[in-house]
Amino acid sequence: MPADPHHLPLAVQLARDLIRCPSVTPQEGGALSYLGTVLSGAGFRADRVVFSDDGTPDVENLFASIGSGAPHFVFAGHTDVVPPGDEAAWSHGPFEGAIEDGRLFGRGAVDMKGGIAAFAAAALGFVRTRGPDFGGTISLLITGDEEGPAINGTVKLLEWAKANGHVFDGCIVGEPTNPEKLGETIKVGRRGSLSGTIRVNGIQGHVAYPHLARNPVPGLLRLVSALDSEAFDNGNERFEPSNLEFVSIDVGNPAFNVIPARAEARFNIRYNDLWTLQSLQTRIEATLAEAAGGDLSYEIIYKPDASEAFLTKDQGLIDALAAAIRAETGRVPDLSTGGGTSDARFIKNHCPVVEFGLVGQTMHKVDEHVVVDDLERLAAIYARFLESYFQSSKVNAA
Amino acid sequence: MPADPHHLPLAVQLARDLIRCPSVTPQEGGALSYLGTVLSGAGFRADRVVFSDDGTPDVENLFASIGSGAPHFVFAGHTDVVPPGDEAAWSHGPFEGAIEDGRLFGRGAVDMKGGIAAFAAAALGFVRTRGPDFGGTISLLITGDEEGPAINGTVKLLEWAKANGHVFDGCIVGEPTNPEKLGETIKVGRRGSLSGTIRVNGIQGHVAYPHLARNPVPGLLRLVSALDSEAFDNGNERFEPSNLEFVSIDVGNPAFNVIPARAEARFNIRYNDLWTLQSLQTRIEATLAEAAGGDLSYEIIYKPDASEAFLTKDQGLIDALAAAIRAETGRVPDLSTGGGTSDARFIKNHCPVVEFGLVGQTMHKVDEHVVVDDLERLAAIYARFLESYFQSSKVNAA
Repeated sequence: MPADPHHLPLAVQLARDLIRCPSVTPQEGGALSYLGTVLSGAGFRADRVVFSDDGTPDVENLFASIGSGAPHFVFAGHTDVVPPGDEAAWSHGPFEGAIEDGRLFGRGAVDMKGGIAAFAAAALGFVRTRGPDFGGTISLLITGDEEGPAINGTVKLLEWAKANGHVFDGCIVGEPTNPEKLGETIKVGRRGSLSGTIRVNGIQGHVAYPHLARNPVPGLLRLVSALDSEAFDNGNERFEPSNLEFVSIDVGNPAFNVIPARAEARFNIRYNDLWTLQSLQTRIEATLAEAAGGDLSYEIIYKPDASEAFLTKDQGLIDALAAAIRAETGRVPDLSTGGGTSDARFIKNHCPVVEFGLVGQTMHKVDEHVVVDDLERLAAIYARFLESYFQSSKVNAA
Repeated sequence: MPADPHHLPLAVQLARDLIRCPSVTPQEGGALSYLGTVLSGAGFRADRVVFSDDGTPDVENLFASIGSGAPHFVFAGHTDVVPPGDEAAWSHGPFEGAIEDGRLFGRGAVDMKGGIAAFAAAALGFVRTRGPDFGGTISLLITGDEEGPAINGTVKLLEWAKANGHVFDGCIVGEPTNPEKLGETIKVGRRGSLSGTIRVNGIQGHVAYPHLARNPVPGLLRLVSALDSEAFDNGNERFEPSNLEFVSIDVGNPAFNVIPARAEARFNIRYNDLWTLQSLQTRIEATLAEAAGGDLSYEIIYKPDASEAFLTKDQGLIDALAAAIRAETGRVPDLSTGGGTSDARFIKNHCPVVEFGLVGQTMHKVDEHVVVDDLERLAAIYARFLESYFQSSKVNAA
């Protein structure tokens, strides 16, 4: 059945229109303007906020609210998308918003213009039915900097919201959390991430005269082997075991007859909530010190973008979302902490946060697309969640 | 006592004139022309031979001979020099040939225009005294490609000489072999050299999903650690223990969140005559195979410029040179096989070869220089050697 553009469900229409805005990070591409206009038209207060920082691009963001007082629920997302890559390889233009065989094609279809469209459709429906005095506040916190350096986006928008008197009680991030089928997975936390470089200094020289040089490679191997064989933990009920990967070792010496002056290894560890950033660094440094012995000149340089592991403990938030998912899809979602990092790592410092969105299979790939039925069903899940969230809060407040 | 340029000893005069030829490899710079003219003037047959090869510069070489029949002694050397580097840092111009405080300054003073000058002076004196019928042949095999790729120099000149009926009985290479004082060290062999790259192939992926990737780094570490801890041998009477150095490990992955697809390590081993190139490669491959186990995808790529270890067994050649050194310097030279490689690795396939020249301390450095007295003394050593070599050969032939 071909899609009739005049009778598209609201979530599909919004998703298609957002895809048509070429908002490759950090370009706004008209996406935030469009979303702000739609929300304003339904009575939301919409603020466009631009953040700047030396060395990173200026980024536009959108904060839109309706209602008043607690509980204050916020949906977080991003309209920026990763580049489409080779456009010629796409079956449909990446910013065309073509619908074929029940699928809406385009960059951002699942990551995450589709998620935003589904929530906006749900919120608009909820407000249309209940009116603006529904007993709380609904906000959308939308950044244009999630796929970029993540400096002028969610972090600063959260601070801005706080400075403007917004106190959030709960948040859903609309990232695509489901591996294969809608309703499979809610993310209820994330592992922490720590990156670092281990550098061993030696003394350069000729390979024929090793006694006049000090090769840094064997010393680095000792450190890397020690850290690579470290069993940090076995995980726990909610988290996988922490895992460290050496992602690069680099000497960069082009000459086979020269002993190099320096050798570096770079690692990333995804770690669970059995560690804090501090306790993890202490363990890493102790392991290196023991492997180094007394005679090895080395240093460790941490990358400044480390994040702490976290687990969301608001069972009410999780239960409301899980119940809505089960009602709409028949599935009991896994409560996962796996995968990469997301903006949830910033939001968790402000309020309880979970993540739930579309099926991620095609994200960042050629021919990214969303099943149209999924868009409608996700909108229905979000709508049911809002009903439940503000219903139960009323009951709780009573 | 300032040097009087009109009364310089011949070795010093030749060395100074050669230094004044700016023969930075692969440029001839007039050095071979000058040497050829001087030798021709004394009755030598001098041939200039140019060799070409795709991808390397054309190189000029010189082959000069006097006398006839066996024994045929050949002196081997090179007039090309390494670049002077920052000329402003030199006390005297690197191609000026300045003499100050009993020292002759200039690029090539010890490596090895000084050595060539000393031998040429010795040979000219020997021929002047004994005439061309001294009972054998003296040749000079001089290349302009020792400091360069070593493709269009000694190797091809040796082949050319062989094709032209020259059969050598003994050779001295005039490289600077003495660490601090003239007469300390004769090189009577050289270690072999083998370079290789070990490459481990993995599967690229995101660090958050290590089960979907295969990190090549831990596998490479296993191979590198195994080879680095291999005790190849303990050396023997004439050779140091073989020594392997990992000169580089490279992954080249700029992203901390990406597991790389490939990791490489590069090594060089300087090995003694307890090994052949073949037996050494067999041992290396066995060590890697054992460390790899069954499940590691790796390859080893040898660099094609490997050389075999060798030890010169012509005791007559060594004794004649050692006796000449002792007579002129009072020193009993060490018979060494240490240090880097030299053109001796090619000559040893044609005849017994030893190496003896000036003091190497300043070679390849700013303000390279030779003590003028050393130049004269080296000429005297070479002259005494020639007397002894052709005397004893007469006795042997009688």
